[in-house]
Amino acid sequence: MSAHPPAGTGPAVQDLYPDDVAHCYGCGRLNAHGIQLKSHWDDEAQGTTIAVVTPREYHTAIPGFVYGGMVASIIDCHGTGSAALAGYRAQEREPGSEPPLRYVTASLHVDFLKPTPLGPPLTARGSIVEVSGRVPGRKVVTDITLSAGEVTVATGQVVAVLMPDTMKAG
Amino acid sequence: MSAHPPAGTGPAVQDLYPDDVAHCYGCGRLNAHGIQLKSHWDDEAQGTTIAVVTPREYHTAIPGFVYGGMVASIIDCHGTGSAALAGYRAQEREPGSEPPLRYVTASLHVDFLKPTPLGPPLTARGSIVEVSGRVPGRKVVTDITLSAGEVTVATGQVVAVLMPDTMKAG
Repeated sequence: MSAHPPAGTGPAVQDLYPDDVAHCYGCGRLNAHGIQLKSHWDDEAQGTTIAVVTPREYHTAIPGFVYGGMVASIIDCHGTGSAALAGYRAQEREPGSEPPLRYVTASLHVDFLKPTPLGPPLTARGSIVEVSGRVPGRKVVTDITLSAGEVTVATGQVVAVLMPDTMKAG
Repeated sequence: MSAHPPAGTGPAVQDLYPDDVAHCYGCGRLNAHGIQLKSHWDDEAQGTTIAVVTPREYHTAIPGFVYGGMVASIIDCHGTGSAALAGYRAQEREPGSEPPLRYVTASLHVDFLKPTPLGPPLTARGSIVEVSGRVPGRKVVTDITLSAGEVTVATGQVVAVLMPDTMKAG
């Protein structure tokens, strides 16, 4: 991971996850092996989010390009991070306030538009398109675009739901 | 990676990829950091494929479970591997014969049905549902089921296409 310029506003929602749910390879601050993706609001009023991340040199597809699973991972983790931001907003509370909100992915779709170059930082931009549920924000749908510089390399959609208690017990 | 019992028939198609396209984090035999997924025919006449893989201990979601990006990676890489098997079959040649066939993902869909336990081997089973293209096998669609023991944890679909020359040039 190289250092990135600041992107978005407010704290990264992943930095507010409780320690016991902060080990995700894609976005956990406590996973030293992972890529520690950080999701922020880009424009909270508009419901847009942003994360900038640089895959490691061994996250290769063929030499020079990022493997598809990492592209999917970035979209997936930025989707659950965006869902957490949207969930706190739906409950009219600050990110990180109690009780914590942590999401898992129900479904993930990725369209790979162009080969993703390995090396430069990649920018994931989310747009919250649905926030629903009897518990406000139980389900959040986010459309995501991944770009390398000015080039859009992939688009996707993440349907995220609040983590079930069965996983917390794990 | 732990050793797995043999699964499927014939060589793993990834072991037949030319060296210059064998570095994928998900399935490249030359990527020491990756998980080296191996796809075989399960039943060639039926168009079914199989791969058994064990994620590493740091491919965590929350402790005890595999992160969603790795589930997506397994489905993605078994999809491109299944596509290669189907492509050789469509061209009535042995896997690994010249010219080599290597696929990339056009689109990926994953439905996460249950939390995926981290530790046991996971079995990806593919079913080839479409083989098309002016060049036989240019496009291959594979439905994939991922299971841990008897439990289906995720299903997905991979649309794979032959690698464009622009990537080979990279």
